[in-house]
Amino acid sequence: MTNVQRKGSLLSFRPDIKVLDATLRDGGLCNNFQFSDEFAKALYAMNVEAGVDYMEMGYKASKALFDPSKFGKYKFCDEKDLQAIVGENKSDMKLAVMADVGRTDFRKDIGEKKDSVLDMVRVACYINEIPRAIEMIEYCHKKGYETCANVMAVSKASEEEIADALAMLGQSPVDVIYLVDSYGSLYPEQVAKLTLRYLEYGEKYKKVIGVHAHNNQQLAFGNTIEAASWGASMLDMTVNGIGRGAGNCSSELLLGFLKNPKFRIEPVLRFISEYMLPLREAGVVWGYDVPYLLTGRLNMHPSSAIAFIRAGRTDYDAFNGELTEKD
Amino acid sequence: MTNVQRKGSLLSFRPDIKVLDATLRDGGLCNNFQFSDEFAKALYAMNVEAGVDYMEMGYKASKALFDPSKFGKYKFCDEKDLQAIVGENKSDMKLAVMADVGRTDFRKDIGEKKDSVLDMVRVACYINEIPRAIEMIEYCHKKGYETCANVMAVSKASEEEIADALAMLGQSPVDVIYLVDSYGSLYPEQVAKLTLRYLEYGEKYKKVIGVHAHNNQQLAFGNTIEAASWGASMLDMTVNGIGRGAGNCSSELLLGFLKNPKFRIEPVLRFISEYMLPLREAGVVWGYDVPYLLTGRLNMHPSSAIAFIRAGRTDYDAFNGELTEKD
Repeated sequence: MTNVQRKGSLLSFRPDIKVLDATLRDGGLCNNFQFSDEFAKALYAMNVEAGVDYMEMGYKASKALFDPSKFGKYKFCDEKDLQAIVGENKSDMKLAVMADVGRTDFRKDIGEKKDSVLDMVRVACYINEIPRAIEMIEYCHKKGYETCANVMAVSKASEEEIADALAMLGQSPVDVIYLVDSYGSLYPEQVAKLTLRYLEYGEKYKKVIGVHAHNNQQLAFGNTIEAASWGASMLDMTVNGIGRGAGNCSSELLLGFLKNPKFRIEPVLRFISEYMLPLREAGVVWGYDVPYLLTGRLNMHPSSAIAFIRAGRTDYDAFNGELTEKD
Repeated sequence: MTNVQRKGSLLSFRPDIKVLDATLRDGGLCNNFQFSDEFAKALYAMNVEAGVDYMEMGYKASKALFDPSKFGKYKFCDEKDLQAIVGENKSDMKLAVMADVGRTDFRKDIGEKKDSVLDMVRVACYINEIPRAIEMIEYCHKKGYETCANVMAVSKASEEEIADALAMLGQSPVDVIYLVDSYGSLYPEQVAKLTLRYLEYGEKYKKVIGVHAHNNQQLAFGNTIEAASWGASMLDMTVNGIGRGAGNCSSELLLGFLKNPKFRIEPVLRFISEYMLPLREAGVVWGYDVPYLLTGRLNMHPSSAIAFIRAGRTDYDAFNGELTEKD
C-alpha cells in the first residue's frame, strides 16, 4: 500500500466511475421479489433522473427450480414483464439482470440482445464454478450482451484460487469482474488489497473492476469508496441499502459522495420517502443488526442470522456461541 | 499516503490501543442522561468484563447553567452519585468525565483526584476556545487527573487553525489529543490525513492521539479503524452505537475487530439484549437515518436533523432543500 497511489482525490470526479442500482435484485431477496408495478416504474424513473448508469432488474432464475407462483416476477425477468415496466427503455441508463450458475436455464431464458431491453448479464458464481460461469459468459457475449462475473464469497478463497480465477476470467470475453464481499466480512484494508489484486488482472486483460459490498459491519459504503479510491469503477448500491440481511451500500450515501455532477441525490431522497418507508412499514426487514455483525466478523453466510431474527430471538450472546461452536 | 506505513496488520494487536466507552456521556444526549442505577451499574460491570480501558461517566456540567431537575445525574457527575454506581472502582478500568469549555464550573465542581473515583477529565472545546481549554487542562492536571482535549468540529477548521491548535496543545500538559468528527462529515481518506497530521504533533510532544467518530454516513466504525490503522490509539465507542443523532462507533463492532485478547465481545452482546433493546423499546432514538446523512455530508451540526425527526417529518428532499438554502 506504500508504492501505489489512490485514483483521483476526494474533490475530483472520475468519469470512469459507473454506478449500478441493485434494488430490485438484492432487495428482492427481502420480499421474494414481490414489488408492485408502481414501485418498479417509480424506481426506474428515479434511477434515470438520478444519473444511474445501470439498473439491475432482478434474476433470470430457472422456472424448473423455482415455482413462479411463489416469487415476484423480478425473480425471472421475462421480457414481457420487463417491457411492461420500462417500455423500450428510451433512456441512457442500461439494464442488467443476474443469473446464478446452476440456478438458471440460460440457453432457454436468455435470448438475443436485439430482442431484449436488457443490456448486461451478470453471472454470479462461487470460485469453484468459474468454468461454468465462463460458459455462460461466452454464451451471453455471443448473444450480444455486456457481461459481468460476480465471484461470490472471495473472503473464503485462498490467494492462489483468486489469482487462478482472475486469470481465467481475464482470458474470457467478460467485461466486468466484481469483487463481492458476500458475507460482509471484509475490512477496508482487505478491500484495498483485493481491489489492487483484481486491478492487476483488470489492467492486464482490459477488464473493468466492480465492487459489491454488504453492510454486516456497517462497512458497505466505506468499503465501496475504499475500493473506488484504488480504482474499482463499477459500484453497486441499493436504495436505502435494501438487500439480504444487513443489506448493501446505500444509494443515498454513494450518490451523496460521488462528485460527478450527473449524479443527483434528490430523486433518491424522494423515492425513500414515497416508497421505501412504506415498504418497511409493510414489514420488509433489512439493514444492520447485531446478528449480521456476528456472522460477518466470522466470515459466515448470513442465513443463520436471518433465521435468528425471523425467529424473534434477541439472545445475541447465545447465538454467537452457536456460531463459534459450529466453526 | 505513499511514504508512510500503517501501524500493525489486521491480524496483529497493538498493546498501545485503548478503548473508551462513552455510552453514559454521548448516549445521555439521547435521553437527558436519565439512565437508571441498574443500567449504569450493569454497564460498569460489563465494561470491566469486556476489558474496556476507560469508561466515561457523563459530564461535569454547571448547575447554574443547567437545571438539575431536568437532567439525570450523569449530566453533573457528583462524586457521591458516581460512588453509588462504582463504589471505589476497584477495577483496572479508569473512569473519565467530560467538561465543556464554557459550560462547567470546573473550579467549583472538580476537586482533588485523591478525593475522587475519576481518573481523567476530557475537556471539549471548539477550535477557537483552545486557550480556555488549556486553562482547564492545566487546572485538572494540577489536581492530579489525566487529561484529554477533544477539539470539536475540526471538519470546519482550516489547516492553519488545526496546526496552531495542535502546537498549543502539544505544549500543554494534556495527555491525549482527540480527532473529533462532530458532524459525521469526514470520509476515511480525510480521517487518514488528519490522523497523520495529529500524529506529527503527538510524536513531537509525546501525546496520545484519540478518535471520536459519528455515524451520519455509516462511517463511524470505518473511520475509527482507519484512524487506528495509522496510529491513533485511544478509540471512543458506545454500546450499540448510542449517541446524539446518528450515534457513534459501536462497541460490538470495535471489540469484534480488535485483536487484543483482553477485549471480549460477549459481555457487550448480553448487555445489548438486556439493556439496550429495552431502551429502544422505551422510545430512546439513535442511529443512522437519512436526515443525519444530509447534515453530515454538508458538514453541518445535526441539530436540524434531530428536530426534523422529532417533528415526525419524512420529506427528506424538502429537508435537504432547506439545508442547502441556508448554506
